[in-house]
Amino acid sequence: RRKFLVTGGNGFIGSHVAKALFDRGEFVRVADLSPSSAFAEPICDETYTGNLCDSHFCERAVKGMDTVLHFAATMGGMGTIHEGNDLTIYPENSTMTFNILAASIRAGVRVFFYASSACVYPEHRQTDPNADVSLEESHVWDGGIPKPQGHYGLEKLTSELLVLQSASKINVRIARFHNVFGPRGAWNNGREKVPAAFLRKALSIALAGKFPAELEIWGNGRQRRSFLFIDDCVKAILKLVESTCDKPVNIGSDRAVAIEELAKIAVQCAGLQAEDVKFCYDSDSKPIGVCSRNSNNVFARETLGWSPSVSLEEGMKQTAEWIREEMKKNL
Amino acid sequence: RRKFLVTGGNGFIGSHVAKALFDRGEFVRVADLSPSSAFAEPICDETYTGNLCDSHFCERAVKGMDTVLHFAATMGGMGTIHEGNDLTIYPENSTMTFNILAASIRAGVRVFFYASSACVYPEHRQTDPNADVSLEESHVWDGGIPKPQGHYGLEKLTSELLVLQSASKINVRIARFHNVFGPRGAWNNGREKVPAAFLRKALSIALAGKFPAELEIWGNGRQRRSFLFIDDCVKAILKLVESTCDKPVNIGSDRAVAIEELAKIAVQCAGLQAEDVKFCYDSDSKPIGVCSRNSNNVFARETLGWSPSVSLEEGMKQTAEWIREEMKKNL
Ligand SMILES: NC(=O)c1ccc[n+]([C@@H]2O[C@H](COP(=O)([O-])OP(=O)(O)OC[C@H]3O[C@@H](n4cnc5c(N)ncnc54)[C@H](O)[C@@H]3O)[C@@H](O)[C@H]2O)c1
Ligand SMILES: NC(=O)c1ccc[n+]([C@@H]2O[C@H](COP(=O)([O-])OP(=O)(O)OC[C@H]3O[C@@H](n4cnc5c(N)ncnc54)[C@H](O)[C@@H]3O)[C@@H](O)[C@H]2O)c1
Ligand SMILES: O=c1ccn([C@@H]2O[C@H](COP(=O)(O)OP(=O)(O)O)[C@@H](O)[C@H]2O)c(=O)[nH]1
Ligand SMILES: O=c1ccn([C@@H]2O[C@H](COP(=O)(O)OP(=O)(O)O)[C@@H](O)[C@H]2O)c(=O)[nH]1
Ligand SMILES: O=c1ccn([C@@H]2O[C@H](COP(=O)(O)OP(=O)(O)O)[C@@H](O)[C@H]2O)c(=O)[nH]1
Ligand SMILES: O=c1ccn([C@@H]2O[C@H](COP(=O)(O)OP(=O)(O)O)[C@@H](O)[C@H]2O)c(=O)[nH]1
Repeated sequence: RRKFLVTGGNGFIGSHVAKALFDRGEFVRVADLSPSSAFAEPICDETYTGNLCDSHFCERAVKGMDTVLHFAATMGGMGTIHEGNDLTIYPENSTMTFNILAASIRAGVRVFFYASSACVYPEHRQTDPNADVSLEESHVWDGGIPKPQGHYGLEKLTSELLVLQSASKINVRIARFHNVFGPRGAWNNGREKVPAAFLRKALSIALAGKFPAELEIWGNGRQRRSFLFIDDCVKAILKLVESTCDKPVNIGSDRAVAIEELAKIAVQCAGLQAEDVKFCYDSDSKPIGVCSRNSNNVFARETLGWSPSVSLEEGMKQTAEWIREEMKKNL
Repeated sequence: RRKFLVTGGNGFIGSHVAKALFDRGEFVRVADLSPSSAFAEPICDETYTGNLCDSHFCERAVKGMDTVLHFAATMGGMGTIHEGNDLTIYPENSTMTFNILAASIRAGVRVFFYASSACVYPEHRQTDPNADVSLEESHVWDGGIPKPQGHYGLEKLTSELLVLQSASKINVRIARFHNVFGPRGAWNNGREKVPAAFLRKALSIALAGKFPAELEIWGNGRQRRSFLFIDDCVKAILKLVESTCDKPVNIGSDRAVAIEELAKIAVQCAGLQAEDVKFCYDSDSKPIGVCSRNSNNVFARETLGWSPSVSLEEGMKQTAEWIREEMKKNL
């Protein structure tokens, strides 16, 4: 039995990964601020509740572990990681990553996995909503001084460098996630990303039963993104951890859609007819992020033999079912 | 009267800059762990003693200031910034820089100066001791993932990125210093860089008066560096602060010498004859750093109209005089 520490293991991606390892029979310890996950069933052998900004907590958390998977972060959609929060997100996330990495090196942990993000890519590449912007791993470094997306993206980038600089002391693995979604992801706490946000809005309309109703899109709806279903994401993470790839690798879907197209899929998944819903647009007061972003998966295919297999429609359907159940609990 | 905060203003470079501003009639506040500088005379209007890793101390320190010059860091020669100290230097220096920058932005400071280093340049460019490696500012970004020198260099690089990312909120100025030396620099506390180290060794030989005596050089003496005299450094910093240049700029000498040549100059400055001293070499147990490094000053000349004017021999002579007086005090 190998021993895994999953930081942020009660969060969205971390809890799915912890559960996959636990179900496989590995020893799994979760370290998180939060004492429990969104799963009803057990996902790990033990939970350490505490703050990873505290280096002593990190020391305790890594003790006896072979592999550390570091997911913990202050994280959210554009509603969370915007400029107003820059000066709190940066120091928290970078302190956590430094602490857990340093503790892992000191404790002789063998493999360290770091959860980075598509936000490391330069904003200036992602300004044309009519282009399909396929981001290759090397694009971070090809235009002089890198300009990642906000302080959230900057922290991911500087932490990648910190992890890479430690590659002589510990086996490092780095994933750059592109918009991961699915059951148990944030959907109603202000941290949700756009797939869950649209599903919540569409399902609320269906529940209320008054048609036609308005569904608000931030921006003009033509901004493009790709969305990766959580089951595909977990598979990729496990492949990466077992691989010998010590360079950052995209873990994302390479099918980009306009946000308005995603909204239409959400409407369908909520069981609504297209004419039940009227889109309205808020381009002024809401954060929009980049105009166009897609994951280039050539390197992931080559090094991990991995590609996503769940379609956006299927992933949205499963997510809709989960959010519907959650909404019912709250009624 | 403009109001300057000089962090690390009781350290080597900071104290010279504080004094230059104070002598010019500006209002100068020093913030430092250490309550006093190596100057006997006053160098500032007021001193705040405290730790910049404490964000509340940073808030107090920036209050009412127009310009913040950030020199504070855990810093030293190869005897200090080697691998064994990586895991303490990185978090201290990065926390300080984040705290003082965030406090400056929140307080509406107009100009923020950051003291970076030649250690940001990739080690792989600096491996040939027979080449003159002239480092241009852009070289940090031209070879894929940047690989700065150790965690000390990595922290300088990630902090540069943090400062650059804030350029929309505060006027930023970034200097990359290359080996600065002169009176009041560390010389006997384990933090000294090689000019002061060689002068101390040569002056001790002169004081002891037993010839021939051995002077130890780390490595084979053929590794190359350039050395900037403190008076030239202060002039460059003041020009940079007054400029509109918001990109990192080298502040160094562009005359590289082999370390053994520097040792010969130190021997002369100590009033010794060449035959009084026999060099010996320790290539195994001592940290050597990069093989060859020089400052490319094209960008500094263009943007600041600055070039160094004090020769290495003259700078070493003035430094020798100061160290000699310090040694006498300790007799
Ligand atoms: N979900 C995505 O689409 C996406 C995209 C790019 C990158 N990422 C990255 O993947 C990782 C996981 O994201 P997620 O969507 O699962 O986020 P999440 O918010 O669901 O999970 C993060 C977990 O970290 C925990 N945490 C936060 N601060 C902590 C602290 N100081 N000490 C201990 N625990 C702390 C939280 O309690 C939470 O359970 C994050 O690093 C995130 O930045 C996610
Ligand atoms: N001297 C060089 O050749 C050189 C070369 C490259 C870069 N630099 C950079 O220039 C800056 C100044 O270097 P220096 O040679 O004057 O170093 P120094 O060690 O003489 O001065 C640094 C000062 O910072 C203070 N300090 C350290 N930690 C602190 C903390 N937590 N809170 C408050 N004060 C703290 C120290 O007390 C000291 O007075 C540093 O950032 C250094 O990394 C210097
Ligand atoms: O309720 C929402 C939430 C997000 N968005 C938009 O959807 C895109 C993706 O946002 P998300 O928060 O998922 O994160 P990003 O991919 O930008 O990091 C952005 O253009 C948002 O403005 C939206 O239209 N409605
Ligand atoms: O991310 C990793 C790194 C290593 N290993 C396995 O661990 C063993 C040796 O690991 P070690 O820590 O010695 O790594 P190395 O020093 O060889 O890079 C080998 O069987 C690897 O296949 C693994 O499963 N995942
Ligand atoms: O007492 C000393 C101190 C340093 N060095 C060498 O001088 C060079 C410059 O070292 P320094 O500490 O000044 O810093 P660096 O320029 O490498 O950052 C390095 O190769 C050191 O090994 C030396 O020979 N004797
Ligand atoms: O590093 C600087 C930046 C600005 N200024 C002077 O400050 C005034 C305006 O500064 P402001 O903060 O408005 O900067 P801006 O927004 O124009 O970049 C002008 O006279 C500049 O010459 C200065 O002396 N040093």
